[in-house]
Parts: sequence; C-alpha cells; structure tokens
Amino acid sequence: MISDRLFTIREEGDSVLILDQTLLPHQVATRHLRSLADAAHAIRAMLVRGAPLVGVTAAYGVALALKDGAGNEALQHACGTLATTRPTAVNLHWALARMHRHLLPLPVAQRRAAAWAEAHAIAAEDAAANRRIGEHGLPLIEKLGRRPAQLMTHCNAGWLATVAWGTALAPVYAARNAGLPVHVFVSETRPRNQGLLTAWELHEAGVPHTLIADNAAGHLLRQGKVDMVIVGADRIAANGDTANKVGTYLKALAAHDNGVPFYVAAPLSTIDRDCPDGTQIPIEEREGGEVRHVGGLDRQGVHATVAIAPDTTSIANPAFDVTPARLITGIVTERGVCAPDELPALFGERP
Amino acid sequence: MISDRLFTIREEGDSVLILDQTLLPHQVATRHLRSLADAAHAIRAMLVRGAPLVGVTAAYGVALALKDGAGNEALQHACGTLATTRPTAVNLHWALARMHRHLLPLPVAQRRAAAWAEAHAIAAEDAAANRRIGEHGLPLIEKLGRRPAQLMTHCNAGWLATVAWGTALAPVYAARNAGLPVHVFVSETRPRNQGLLTAWELHEAGVPHTLIADNAAGHLLRQGKVDMVIVGADRIAANGDTANKVGTYLKALAAHDNGVPFYVAAPLSTIDRDCPDGTQIPIEEREGGEVRHVGGLDRQGVHATVAIAPDTTSIANPAFDVTPARLITGIVTERGVCAPDELPALFGERP
Repeated sequence: MISDRLFTIREEGDSVLILDQTLLPHQVATRHLRSLADAAHAIRAMLVRGAPLVGVTAAYGVALALKDGAGNEALQHACGTLATTRPTAVNLHWALARMHRHLLPLPVAQRRAAAWAEAHAIAAEDAAANRRIGEHGLPLIEKLGRRPAQLMTHCNAGWLATVAWGTALAPVYAARNAGLPVHVFVSETRPRNQGLLTAWELHEAGVPHTLIADNAAGHLLRQGKVDMVIVGADRIAANGDTANKVGTYLKALAAHDNGVPFYVAAPLSTIDRDCPDGTQIPIEEREGGEVRHVGGLDRQGVHATVAIAPDTTSIANPAFDVTPARLITGIVTERGVCAPDELPALFGERP
Repeated sequence: MISDRLFTIREEGDSVLILDQTLLPHQVATRHLRSLADAAHAIRAMLVRGAPLVGVTAAYGVALALKDGAGNEALQHACGTLATTRPTAVNLHWALARMHRHLLPLPVAQRRAAAWAEAHAIAAEDAAANRRIGEHGLPLIEKLGRRPAQLMTHCNAGWLATVAWGTALAPVYAARNAGLPVHVFVSETRPRNQGLLTAWELHEAGVPHTLIADNAAGHLLRQGKVDMVIVGADRIAANGDTANKVGTYLKALAAHDNGVPFYVAAPLSTIDRDCPDGTQIPIEEREGGEVRHVGGLDRQGVHATVAIAPDTTSIANPAFDVTPARLITGIVTERGVCAPDELPALFGERP
C-alpha cells in the first residue's frame, strides 16, 4: 500500500480490494475481488499486472477460493485455475507453489486462515524486497555523472506492478527520497501502453519524466541522452536471460550498442532456477485486439476505444521477449546487484 | 498513379489532386492542392508523406506557386517556403534544387509551363526508379530459402510513399507479380501508425501480411520468423548512414543480432552526397500531440481521436533515427544493390 488513496492491493474484510489498472491513467477506481473467479479474471484481463503483483494476487486468490471449502481438491482447483491465467511471469507459479506447499500439510479447518496469513506474508515480503531493491539500486544512480541522472525504463515496473515501491522504479524512488535529481524517459509500451501507468505514478510522486514512443528509445540512446536503462522482469532464467515486456530486448540492444548500462531489477521470486535459459521461457501470445484497439479519453473526456486497424487485418501480439544475459549489465535484487552469471552465488551456490 | 481510384498524386487541370493519407486506412479521400500554401500544408501536416512523394509534391508546389507570377522573387519564395516544411527527407531539397536550377535560367513567361513539365518529369522518374528498385530487389527475395519468404518492414515505404511502386515494397510487389510467395510483418510505427498504411496497401494488393506492435520486432527476429528486413529511407549520407522513420535503428540492431539481412531501398534522390555521415542529418522533432493522441474509428465507425496521456505529460517525439552503415547489408537503388561503402561507385566515383 502506498497511501489510503493509492494502493495496488489490500485486504478488506473477507475480500480483497484492488486498483483497476485498466482504467489508469484516466481514472482511479477500485474493485473488490470476492472469489477465485474474480481473482483469475483480474489477472487474466490485467486489472492487476506486473509480475510481483500478479504473484500476490494469485496468493490472495487461493485464500478467496477456500471460502467455501478448503479440502485438497478445492486447494488443487484454486492453484490450477490461477496457474493458467498467464504463462510468462514466474512469480505467479512461485506464489502458488508456496501457498500449496504451506497449506497442504495443514488440517483442512486451519487452511483458510492460514491462506490469508500466507498471502499477507507474501505481500509484505514483496514490499520489503522492493524497498531493498531500491536501496541496492540507488548507488548505481548516484555514480552516474549527470544531474539530473537520465534514466530510461520500459513498461511499468513501479509500485503499480508490485505491493509497494516497484522493482525498476524502486531505485528511482530511493533517489528521490535521497534528494538525488533524476529524470526518467518512459516508453509508451504498446500495445497496452503501460508506460502511461509509469508516467502517472511518476507524476504522483513528483519525479520528472518524459513520455516517448517505443520507437524513439534507440534515437535517444544514440544521442547520448540516457545514462542508464532499468527495467523489471517477468522471469529470469538460471543463466540470466530475462523475459520482460515485449520491446525490452530492443532497448537492451540499443543500450549495448551505445555503451549505456542496462539493469534488470526484480525480487528473487522472479528468478526461475529450474529454467536453464531464455529459450525455455514460455512467451504469452495475447489477442490481436490489444494491438487493434487503443483506449483513452475522447474529446468529452469520456473513456473511449478506437480501432486503428480493420477487423480483417491479421495481427501477431507476443506480450514478452527475452533479453539475453550478454546484454544485461547487472541484476538488482533484494540481496544486492550481481552480474547475470553470478546468479547462482545469490542463492549460495557455485556457478 | 496506381489506378484511377488509387493514386498518391496527379495533375488535374491547373491543380494537383492528392490522396489525403491522414484519413487512411479508414477512408479513401482526395484533396485538391491549388496554391503554394496548400502544398506546404499538405507536406507539413503529412497529408502526403514518404520522402519521394514529399519531393514530388514540393515540385508541384513550385508549379502551383508560379500561377500568380513567376519572377525570381516568386520562385525563391516558393522554394524557400517549401524547404522549411520538413527537415529530414532530402528528396524535398533535391526536388526544390532541381526545380530552381531548371527554372531560373528561363524567361519568366516560360517558367510556369516549364515548372509543370519539370514536376511531371520528377514524378515520372520516381515511378520508373521505383520500378527498377523492385527489379533489383526481387533477386534478394528469391534467394531466401523459405516460402513464403518472410519479410519485415517499418513505417510505409510502399506506393503511398511515392508516385508508384514504393521503395521498400517495390521488391514485394515485384515478387507478387513474379508469383513468388511473400509474407510481410508490418510494424505499427508509432506515433503516427504509418504501418497501417502499409497494411492497407498490402491488403489492396493481395499480399499476405501481419501487423505487429513496434516492440514485437525483436522477438520475431529472435524467433527466426523473419528472413529479411527492408525499409525505405529519408536521407542516406555519403558513408551509408541512413535516416529513416524513428524505430528503424532498433530493427537494424535486432536484425544484425540475429544474422538477418537488413536492406534499405531508396532512389538516388534520397542519397545526400554532401552529407558525410549520419551525425550531420537534421532529425525532425515533431509535436508531442502525435504521441498523446491516437486516431481511429470509434464504435460507430466514425473517425475519432482519443488522448492516451494527460495534457500535463511531457513528451519527446523525434520523427526519425539514424541507422549506422555497419548495420546495413545493402542499399537497393534504381542502379542496383550495393553495400553502404560502395555508394560512391554508384555515382561513378572512387570510394
């Protein structure tokens, strides 16, 4: 929770209150999740999005599901239903596995209360991990020579993508709180324009920023206008290859071509140690309507959608891409900053 | 002219008829240009766009301007006015210089008729050059192993960007006419969505294609789904560095990273031999409203615009970027295909 007014998810009685992110940046509105179906819909239709927040919502979804019975079958059904909502972000599967592992050994009568407690713990740990990501990322910004430091991000990996602080934006907020001037180039992030979410939350936080079309990122990097690129992640493979919002790979290529550091910020729950490399990460293909239709405010200030392409136009819409580890300068987690090939050491293993 | 129904520009009496490309792909409508101001507005507001077509429109703009007097001052005023409409595409300046050079030595009384004749010649030469670009580009597609050959383009460099055939799409049309199966991935090309123009003209021509968000290009290239990238150009420097629609550089990086050939197709009028390299190419910065607003059809099928970002959001909107010659496999001109460092030989010079 950021404030009483601004939060992504919170408990309210025996329901969960979420910020409906499909209405942002034009409208701040909340919705109650009261059932497994509500939670699954919220994830699938992206009322909540961002890998960490998807994980937390799934955990609460299990708690909501056990309202009408908490037997093994109900537990399995809840985890199975939520697991199919979105394929790429591993935090979803991590949170469900943790809930299942925690609840299964318990007596059925205790499971419902335990589910709420465990979901609450996952949410609290997310906020704490992201705060530490901010602390570890701050020195990376401090050492940039320019003031304000010029950052670039993609999609939304701010507090809207998490329970608090965000991942890629946690160091930005840490810098703001430390009085270090920063300016952020925010990539629109078609087709779903999550860059507008980033612009909105930076505006709310008083952080200077400039919105750009995704296509403009390479030009700005070539012009020397960017000191550091920092993005979130949906799944980091054991070798450091990173799946994140589609278009991330293009920014990583342009950063590399211009000698600009490229960081990935994510909690440990985003690292999939069972996934050897990026080729094994499933990439979600979403429906073409997301590309065909663009939503915003019409001239009367009312939410409206326009079709930019005829219904007959064939569309491909991969939602993520994989940035190879070789293009990543470092990964910022709650345990510190490491090179992609140092990930095993993060877990106390030899590489 | 493509057909009586479909053309980008044609003479009609003492006016010029253009297709209003700001209404495409939703509406096919023409407008008369009757004056210098009409022509300058059509270029600046992008009713006509595409480097070759901008050049041709400017040439006709000079002819329109001389209606009310063809003295040196009027000629200079026409060329000066049109030269300031858009900065990056060199074809504009090339066409104006050619008109000026041709008309200035003539008696004032002959200039108006000569201006129409010279503009007509420039238009006819553009169509002929593009046809040859298609012939020279066809073997590049023929030698790709896959059927249909999988191409990717950016922005619109089809017949809509020229008098006929297009530049990047000329080889695609040549392939279609030769019975060679091709499929084209069409990048949306935010902020002005000229990819929709490409999708529209490929649909009209019966060429299979798939629309993608600009962000998806890297993923498709990494997945091995693209055999060749081909784009147009707004200005090619003497060393082969190429300015084209913003986002081109990102596609070139991704093509290079995946060993996919990256071609630039343009007539000689796009090559600026006075410009030593890409750092000297002026890059147009357009107004942020282009990013803020998206146009399309509303639910009633009526043209509408929605605002995706609040008026308070700061926006940067560079319209072009520069792709360094090292990322370009070859340049396809009416004289054939050459490597970027072979450009001088194209003009009969030693490198």
